[in-house]
Amino acid sequence: MELTIEKEPAGKARKEKDRVHVFAPATVANLVCGFDILGLALDEPGDEVIMERSDQPGVKLLKITGDDGRLPLDPAKNTVSACVQMLLKHLNREDVGVEIELHKHMPIGSGLGSSAASTVAGLFAINQLLGQPLTKQELLPFAMKGEELACGHGHADNVAPSLFGGITLIKSYEPLEVVSIPVPKSLYCSVVFPHVDVPTRAARQMIRSKIELKDAVVQWGNIAGLVSGLFMSDYGLIGRSMQDVLIEPVRAILIPEFYEMRQTAMAAGALGFGISGSGPSVFAFADNHPTASDITRQIVQHLQSKGIDSNGYVSAVNQQGPREL
Amino acid sequence: MELTIEKEPAGKARKEKDRVHVFAPATVANLVCGFDILGLALDEPGDEVIMERSDQPGVKLLKITGDDGRLPLDPAKNTVSACVQMLLKHLNREDVGVEIELHKHMPIGSGLGSSAASTVAGLFAINQLLGQPLTKQELLPFAMKGEELACGHGHADNVAPSLFGGITLIKSYEPLEVVSIPVPKSLYCSVVFPHVDVPTRAARQMIRSKIELKDAVVQWGNIAGLVSGLFMSDYGLIGRSMQDVLIEPVRAILIPEFYEMRQTAMAAGALGFGISGSGPSVFAFADNHPTASDITRQIVQHLQSKGIDSNGYVSAVNQQGPREL
Repeated sequence: MELTIEKEPAGKARKEKDRVHVFAPATVANLVCGFDILGLALDEPGDEVIMERSDQPGVKLLKITGDDGRLPLDPAKNTVSACVQMLLKHLNREDVGVEIELHKHMPIGSGLGSSAASTVAGLFAINQLLGQPLTKQELLPFAMKGEELACGHGHADNVAPSLFGGITLIKSYEPLEVVSIPVPKSLYCSVVFPHVDVPTRAARQMIRSKIELKDAVVQWGNIAGLVSGLFMSDYGLIGRSMQDVLIEPVRAILIPEFYEMRQTAMAAGALGFGISGSGPSVFAFADNHPTASDITRQIVQHLQSKGIDSNGYVSAVNQQGPREL
Repeated sequence: MELTIEKEPAGKARKEKDRVHVFAPATVANLVCGFDILGLALDEPGDEVIMERSDQPGVKLLKITGDDGRLPLDPAKNTVSACVQMLLKHLNREDVGVEIELHKHMPIGSGLGSSAASTVAGLFAINQLLGQPLTKQELLPFAMKGEELACGHGHADNVAPSLFGGITLIKSYEPLEVVSIPVPKSLYCSVVFPHVDVPTRAARQMIRSKIELKDAVVQWGNIAGLVSGLFMSDYGLIGRSMQDVLIEPVRAILIPEFYEMRQTAMAAGALGFGISGSGPSVFAFADNHPTASDITRQIVQHLQSKGIDSNGYVSAVNQQGPREL
C-alpha cells in the first residue's frame, strides 16, 4: 500500500489516554465526474464518538443517539465497535477495554458518508486513546473494512476524505494509493439532504456495468479538468468540469426534483451541482460563503414548496479530518 | 469555444512579412492513460514550412521533402496548403498568394503527429506572414480541420500540443476547451519509431466501442493521478499513473516487441512507458536527460537485435509550440 497523502512519522509513541471525544466529518463522494475516485470532507455535519477505558477487556457500545434506533447496538455488528475491535486485535491489545458512545449528527443513508464518519471517528478515537500507535495511512484499511461491513463494499471514497480531510483522490485500489488534491481558498459547499429514501445498494445496482468508450472519454476530460481546476484555483474550470454523463442520469431518477434543484443552484450562482455519493443528498460548489448559503437556502425552500422536508448545510472543505473535541 | 490556455491579446496588428521559415513540433498523444484528451509537444523531431509571398493569388505547394513521395502535391488535397487556403478565405484575404515548401523531418504514419506538425507549421506560417491577425486559440479549429482531412477525424490531441506547446488537456470538444498542464522541470521523453506499418485508422477501428465501467474507473484514477503528478512534479506518481487497461492492450498487438520494449525501458529507469498516439512509435518518461538517452539507445538496440530498424529521439517537452527559424 502506497499513500502519498501526508508525511507524518509512523508509530511515534505518545501518551495513552483514558477518555477521548472525537469528531469526524461527513463527506461528499464522487464530486460529480469522479465516480468512485474523488471525495471531500465537510466542516459540518459530522459524527462524534466518546470513548472511555473500562476495566473489563472488550469493546462495549453504551449508546447511540441521533440514529432513530436504526443502528445495531451489538458490538460485533456495529461498524464503529467492530472496527475498533479489529484494530485492537491487529495491535495485539485485546487486553484493552473501552466503552463507546456514538452521537450521530447527520442522517443515515443520506449519501453524506454517514457510516464512514462514524467508523473514522471510532478508529481515530481508539488510536488517540492508545497514544497514536498508527498513522492515518495505517488506519485507512480498517476504515475500508468498516465500509464493507456497512455497505457490502469496501470503498474508500468516503472514508479517505473523512480520515485525511481535504479533497482526496483514490488513485488506485491495487495497490491502494490516495493522493491529496489542494483545496482552493474560497471554495464552499452547499449540501442539502432531502428526506427521501434512496438505499445505496439499490442506487449502485442501477448503474450499467458497460459504458460507451466515447462517454468515458468525455468523463475523463471532465475529471482531468476538475483536478486541474482544483490545482489552479480556477473556479470557472472547476464548474465547467462538474458534469457526469454516465452515473448521474441514472441516479437522478431516484431523486425527486433533482433537475429543479440544479436549476435553482445554478441560478443562485453555483459553480456546479450534483449528487453527493449515491444520493439523495445533493451538493453545489460556490466560490464564496454568502453564495453557498444562498444556494442551500433556495434549494431547501424549493423542496419545501413541493412538500419535501430537508436538511441544509453550508460548509467550507474540512482540511483536517477527524479531531479531538 | 472557450480556451484557458493563454492570455495573448487577440488580433494585435503586427507587420506583415514576405517570407517565413517555421518549425512545428512532433507530439505524443494520449500519454498512456489519457486516450484522446492528453498530449505533449517534443523539442524534436518536427516539420518545417518555408512560405513566401508570390504575385499570383492562391496557395501553391512548390515541393515536399522527407516524405518519400507519399504526400499529395495538389494544394487542395495536401493538408498544409488546404488549411492555409481555408484560413485565407476566413480572413477574406484570398487576394494573397503564397508558395510553400514543406520539409518533413519525421516519419509519416508514425504516431508522432506528423500531419499535425505540418498543418500547425503551415497555419503558424501564414499567420506570421499576415502580421498575426489570429491568436493560437483561433488557429486551433483550422488545425483540427486539417486533421479531419488527413485522418478522417478532427481530433485535437496532436494539433493542440503542437500549437500551444507543453502538455495539453482537451478538457472537452463541445464546447472546445484546451487546458495547459504544467511541465515538471526534469521531465524528458524517450521516443522510438520502429519501422513497421500501423495505419491510424486500422488502429482506431480495433478499439471496442463499449467498455467495462470498472475498467473506466481504473482509467480515470490514473488520469487524475497523472494530472496531479504533473502539477506536483511528483515523478513517482506520474510513473505509477502511466497505465492503460483499455486501449493499450489492443493497440499493442500491432506493435512488434511492445512488451519487450517496455521491459527494456523500465529496466533502464523509465518512469513509465507506452504507445505514442496510435503507434507504432513508443515513448517513455524519465526524470533526467541521461536516463532518457539511455532508454532510447537500449530500445533501438533491442529492436536492431530483432531485425527491426527504428528512429530514436531524446527530447525535453517543447514549451513553445511552433516558432520562426
